[in-house]
Amino acid sequence: MVSKGSERLLSAHYPVVREVTTRISDMDGYGHLNGIRIGLFYEDARASFYSVAFEGIERPRFFVAQLTIQYLAEGHWPGTVQVGTGISRIGNSSFEMAQGLFMDGRCLGLCETILVYAPGQTSAPLHDEIRARLERMGTVKATE
Amino acid sequence: MVSKGSERLLSAHYPVVREVTTRISDMDGYGHLNGIRIGLFYEDARASFYSVAFEGIERPRFFVAQLTIQYLAEGHWPGTVQVGTGISRIGNSSFEMAQGLFMDGRCLGLCETILVYAPGQTSAPLHDEIRARLERMGTVKATE
Amino acid sequence: MVSKGSERLLSAHYPVVREVTTRISDMDGYGHLNGIRIGLFYEDARASFYSVAFEGIERPRFFVAQLTIQYLAEGHWPGTVQVGTGISRIGNSSFEMAQGLFMDGRCLGLCETILVYAPGQTSAPLHDEIRARLERMGTVKATE
Amino acid sequence: MVSKGSERLLSAHYPVVREVTTRISDMDGYGHLNGIRIGLFYEDARASFYSVAFEGIERPRFFVAQLTIQYLAEGHWPGTVQVGTGISRIGNSSFEMAQGLFMDGRCLGLCETILVYAPGQTSAPLHDEIRARLERMGTVKATE
Repeated sequence: MVSKGSERLLSAHYPVVREVTTRISDMDGYGHLNGIRIGLFYEDARASFYSVAFEGIERPRFFVAQLTIQYLAEGHWPGTVQVGTGISRIGNSSFEMAQGLFMDGRCLGLCETILVYAPGQTSAPLHDEIRARLERMGTVKATE
Repeated sequence: MVSKGSERLLSAHYPVVREVTTRISDMDGYGHLNGIRIGLFYEDARASFYSVAFEGIERPRFFVAQLTIQYLAEGHWPGTVQVGTGISRIGNSSFEMAQGLFMDGRCLGLCETILVYAPGQTSAPLHDEIRARLERMGTVKATE
Repeated sequence: MVSKGSERLLSAHYPVVREVTTRISDMDGYGHLNGIRIGLFYEDARASFYSVAFEGIERPRFFVAQLTIQYLAEGHWPGTVQVGTGISRIGNSSFEMAQGLFMDGRCLGLCETILVYAPGQTSAPLHDEIRARLERMGTVKATE
Repeated sequence: MVSKGSERLLSAHYPVVREVTTRISDMDGYGHLNGIRIGLFYEDARASFYSVAFEGIERPRFFVAQLTIQYLAEGHWPGTVQVGTGISRIGNSSFEMAQGLFMDGRCLGLCETILVYAPGQTSAPLHDEIRARLERMGTVKATE
């Protein structure tokens, strides 16, 4: 769980911030953003992050090995969310992305994604260009 | 089918225009906006239209009786679409909404929706306040 | 609009019938199947229909030119829907699919889809093998 | 991460198993079940689990505080997945659900969800009837 003073709760700490408009189809029966559909905001921001990180080269293939989403506050429609994204760890054959979801200046939630490099059917070590491009995108702290 | 010179192909002819960001999850395997997910853009703009039309009163309940979507050009991600919405016909117990979807100044498609007023389990005549509020929102031509 | 006695209202009249389980995410705030998400059932059944029709050859590329959905009754969750699919017209460079959605023996709605053959960037005449494979799948009447 | 011999990898260890058909809209551009859409299967099975657990009483309101999904293997379309669901922990004002996703006898992934009881705007202790009904549904081990 994230601690109260964590820099992860402020959008300014993320190297990349993307805006996404909420849709009526994102709402649940209680009039709030649905917990699963929130996953689409994070997914969209990760895809955008890759587009920038791997611009000009063939996009390397990663698969999501683990996804953890924390819910901190409720979002609404209509409106716009900001999704902050950064790299929180680069390992041998995988890396971690750390994301924060914001609306009206409040943090609605956090997301951690472990991505494994799998150019073929199995995982493989991240080669130097991928590593360099990920590092260039900027980092953010993992939650403790 | 819409004719080439139709005013429906220009966003300026719609009384209300709403912006929606596209998401990676809207894409199909060919790298274009998926035909069914495009329905979510129109749905979102209709819901927004109702919010404005019925502001300050309990939202009257309508059900969608018929939905027709025409596809004219392919959209992409990332990007923002504009959805134009207007009333094309007000009948006894139903009305029609006419919509256009735009990206980078091109019309990607059109949508016609027949909505039936159903305050209880069955349809009922539109009462005067609903009719007045719909008319106030502004009209657009139906496709021939 | 479909007439009361239409054969389109009976699942037995469709050459192919596919079962799809409804999901909680298909529901709207009123506790019924959402009108736009119903489009996913029809889409799934069309994709399944193509898989069978074009088995063993490279799947020809079609794009959806027009989609019309009629809503006749409300569906629910949990449950299973049956989607009936057939060919209602084969033209020069396009064909039409006619579909019906059923739950607990009732017809929830109908869908008509115009698909245009587009092997490259523009439409092209349906060649003989595609035409033969579509005909072999079986036909259903269009709504009047 | 789950260990190889874990009982979580066998559907027989879950007290409730639900079948869901995959849809073409669940697929990503690589021809596999998309990682985020897999979340809809788990969500559907949780909702079904609540329906059974709280049958005959007003459904208590919970919010999702944390969701963790592990991906172990790739799924496909067309096909049917089995989602196993059980309770892995009951705390003071929250409980945890443990789920497994299966296809063709293989475990595709695992999901852990922390749900907080929130009858009003804030969390509250689980009262005895909720606790008893959750216990009656059956338990499954958490991953280590």
